[in-house]
Amino acid sequence: MTNPLLGNDKLSVINMGLPSFAESLAEQGAAVTQLQWKPAADAKPELLSVLARINRAGKELSALQEKIEAANKQAVERLNEAQAIWTDVQPARDVVKGFHDNLILHAGPPIAWEKMCGPMQGAIAGALIYEGKAKTFEEACVLAESGKIEFAPCHHYQMVGPMAGVVSPSMWVSVVHNPTHGNYAYCTLNEGLGKVLRFGAYDEEVMTRLKWMEKVLAPALSKAVKHAGGINIKALIAQALQMGDELHNRNNAGTSLLLRELHTHLCKCGLSLEVVEEVYAFINANNHFFLNFSMPAGKVAADAIKGIEYSTIMCAMCRNGVEIGIRVAGTGDRWYTTQSGIPKGLYFGGYSEADANRDLGDSTICETAGFGGFAMATAPAIVKFTGGDAEMALRITNEMYDICYARHRDYQMPILDFAGTPLGVDIRKVVELSSTPYINTGIAHKKAGIGQVGAGLLRAPMPCFQEALLAMGEWT
Amino acid sequence: MTNPLLGNDKLSVINMGLPSFAESLAEQGAAVTQLQWKPAADAKPELLSVLARINRAGKELSALQEKIEAANKQAVERLNEAQAIWTDVQPARDVVKGFHDNLILHAGPPIAWEKMCGPMQGAIAGALIYEGKAKTFEEACVLAESGKIEFAPCHHYQMVGPMAGVVSPSMWVSVVHNPTHGNYAYCTLNEGLGKVLRFGAYDEEVMTRLKWMEKVLAPALSKAVKHAGGINIKALIAQALQMGDELHNRNNAGTSLLLRELHTHLCKCGLSLEVVEEVYAFINANNHFFLNFSMPAGKVAADAIKGIEYSTIMCAMCRNGVEIGIRVAGTGDRWYTTQSGIPKGLYFGGYSEADANRDLGDSTICETAGFGGFAMATAPAIVKFTGGDAEMALRITNEMYDICYARHRDYQMPILDFAGTPLGVDIRKVVELSSTPYINTGIAHKKAGIGQVGAGLLRAPMPCFQEALLAMGEWT
Repeated sequence: MTNPLLGNDKLSVINMGLPSFAESLAEQGAAVTQLQWKPAADAKPELLSVLARINRAGKELSALQEKIEAANKQAVERLNEAQAIWTDVQPARDVVKGFHDNLILHAGPPIAWEKMCGPMQGAIAGALIYEGKAKTFEEACVLAESGKIEFAPCHHYQMVGPMAGVVSPSMWVSVVHNPTHGNYAYCTLNEGLGKVLRFGAYDEEVMTRLKWMEKVLAPALSKAVKHAGGINIKALIAQALQMGDELHNRNNAGTSLLLRELHTHLCKCGLSLEVVEEVYAFINANNHFFLNFSMPAGKVAADAIKGIEYSTIMCAMCRNGVEIGIRVAGTGDRWYTTQSGIPKGLYFGGYSEADANRDLGDSTICETAGFGGFAMATAPAIVKFTGGDAEMALRITNEMYDICYARHRDYQMPILDFAGTPLGVDIRKVVELSSTPYINTGIAHKKAGIGQVGAGLLRAPMPCFQEALLAMGEWT
Repeated sequence: MTNPLLGNDKLSVINMGLPSFAESLAEQGAAVTQLQWKPAADAKPELLSVLARINRAGKELSALQEKIEAANKQAVERLNEAQAIWTDVQPARDVVKGFHDNLILHAGPPIAWEKMCGPMQGAIAGALIYEGKAKTFEEACVLAESGKIEFAPCHHYQMVGPMAGVVSPSMWVSVVHNPTHGNYAYCTLNEGLGKVLRFGAYDEEVMTRLKWMEKVLAPALSKAVKHAGGINIKALIAQALQMGDELHNRNNAGTSLLLRELHTHLCKCGLSLEVVEEVYAFINANNHFFLNFSMPAGKVAADAIKGIEYSTIMCAMCRNGVEIGIRVAGTGDRWYTTQSGIPKGLYFGGYSEADANRDLGDSTICETAGFGGFAMATAPAIVKFTGGDAEMALRITNEMYDICYARHRDYQMPILDFAGTPLGVDIRKVVELSSTPYINTGIAHKKAGIGQVGAGLLRAPMPCFQEALLAMGEWT
């Protein structure tokens, strides 16, 4: 086709800006190169003005910039130094400070019952049935609407929960201790895949499994881990990263190594051979079992930086299926929220993106603490979910270096010559480079009662990071 | 320094040939580029003449060349199709055809007692003590010299053995079946690291462990694997390759996955809780336990091509600590041997290359069957042994593609976008390109009685491949 502007001469274009311009030209047969350039901070004056004050620029730092550098150095040092020792498993009501009989925790930033997504309502209804407070989904919904139940984010109780992240008083949670900074984190035990509470399912099968976990699995693990005198989860994460796990969407090695650590103690803590077999087989059947340990390991590290004044490092990122919320070390408990995204992913047979709930779960504590999507280079199998390749896995990790303040000292990736994983998301860099964290995740059906429909990848949406940056504009 | 030839002009040289020329010039301050070019087949006329006859050249193939192509296609198809099912563990004398009370097997090509290296003599003395035929090393040596004991390569009995590879009648061996081609392979159970029989140690500690393996470990595993109805080793290798193992010097994932496969069956085959714990703990303490399963899995595949007329594919490579021997599918049982090399490696505290025995063991069956050193790209941790980096790991696998006839269909490496491992060493390519197989290996002390001193990497020496090529010159 002859180009209407240039007659028969072949047009050769470098496009800088909206990719749609390049696409139109390419359709007309022109050679187009799309430049991967974005204006700093989306060229928004209010963001640029904050960045000018707080961003490190050259060697001469303002007093504020010096406070920020010192705070961020302290933050990544704490993230690096945090330990994660699994010490016990106990009912949430007995071990989590402030838990009470009418409290139910959920993933993500705060949200009211009536605004919750399907899978979260399904999981809460399931939890109320499990607690004996309701017999049916409908009864549970009536109770949830009544105002008699208090809902709060897991993050407000040193807890993290994958997907719906629902925790009720009788559920047993693992206790993960960070002796370096003296804090604890909690997480339920992983139920398995498919039709499970955390993906919004609540039928008989789900209840039977939860009861077995309460009566058999959790008490057995409690005995075993106490017999072991604690199990070092950080050490297992470090090893698993060298065995193809990124510890968010792939936990095959982590689960294998945990089983190996546990076994002698399962056998020697007074359980019968039958229970040892049953417990081991349950964990063995679910390669995601370790996720519920990598998450609280991330949480104890991230909580160790919350409240470091003037630090621009992200200390929480989580989604409730409607909104994503982030917290920044230097602004403590404050949430910055925006609508959460929809993952691109691999769907189970019969399901598609049309069935997908918006991004859900506290599991982005992995990326917050320097693994998960950030360690994609070491787990190229994950990018197959989205039709990607090994080069994409390397590119994702390299892009995350650009928005992080440091590299992890103990979490290393062999294929990058044992380089540390990107650690400590610096809100300034996210906004300046218009580059948000990559997130690996599971995908729940948007309706209550169905469960998992796939797994995938997405990038966090920008507005919550920009809002956080504006909040830093108040710093002096 | 002024260059005597060119006065003050800076000399800039491209050197093609002996690197020592380039080194001398570089010492004099000249800029030298050493070309990585080697003349085909070391420019030896007798080799070039055979290659001209049997190498594939252009589209027009001679009748002989067509027979070779067809044979090699069949060979790699069989290597790909071979299965490896672990079905049992039994005493060697009961299950290996032709085993008798005065037979002792060893690694590598045939060798007489008096020519054996220290660690092999140590392991044989240990085996004679273990069998109750001698009380001391000295007594065992007298018996070994007496002519009353028959020595033969493991390879002559469908067996493979790591390092010294010594197998005596009472030792229990795992039975690995290839139902596709109907053949079996055998291998002892791995004793652990350091002071162990296969590295030439034979003291009380070694004997006690061997007796426990005979009385407790082996019968327990026999029961468990029969309860399982067999365990698919090939499937475990495929998974472990995606978890950072190359299955020769690194078997962390393989060992983990084997434990997971075994556990339920250990619990349900009639053993006590104490024995289950003891057996699991023994395997758990030794990340090389799986090597003794990856090796017979390689052996059943390699044996499935031995005797395919006109195939130029290597079907065995092994070292007795003095010589390395190879076999080629098209020339059947014939060995081609030459002096074996000395690995470059990482030595345990207090040891150095001066302590190292020459390369030893049947474990190069791994490389023969398309993993081990050939899958280095997926296990960059291994190259750290020799001060290498991730790029070196990728380069090694890529170089091995050049000397292999195909890629493995089921053994894939994520970092190379799930490309199959290099499969089927083509003797023609080895000789033509002057490029021999990379080998990952353990390193034994050269004296009897000491044990393992390190682990490392080397390349097979060329002469045995050239000898094999000359043998193919007889084909018409």
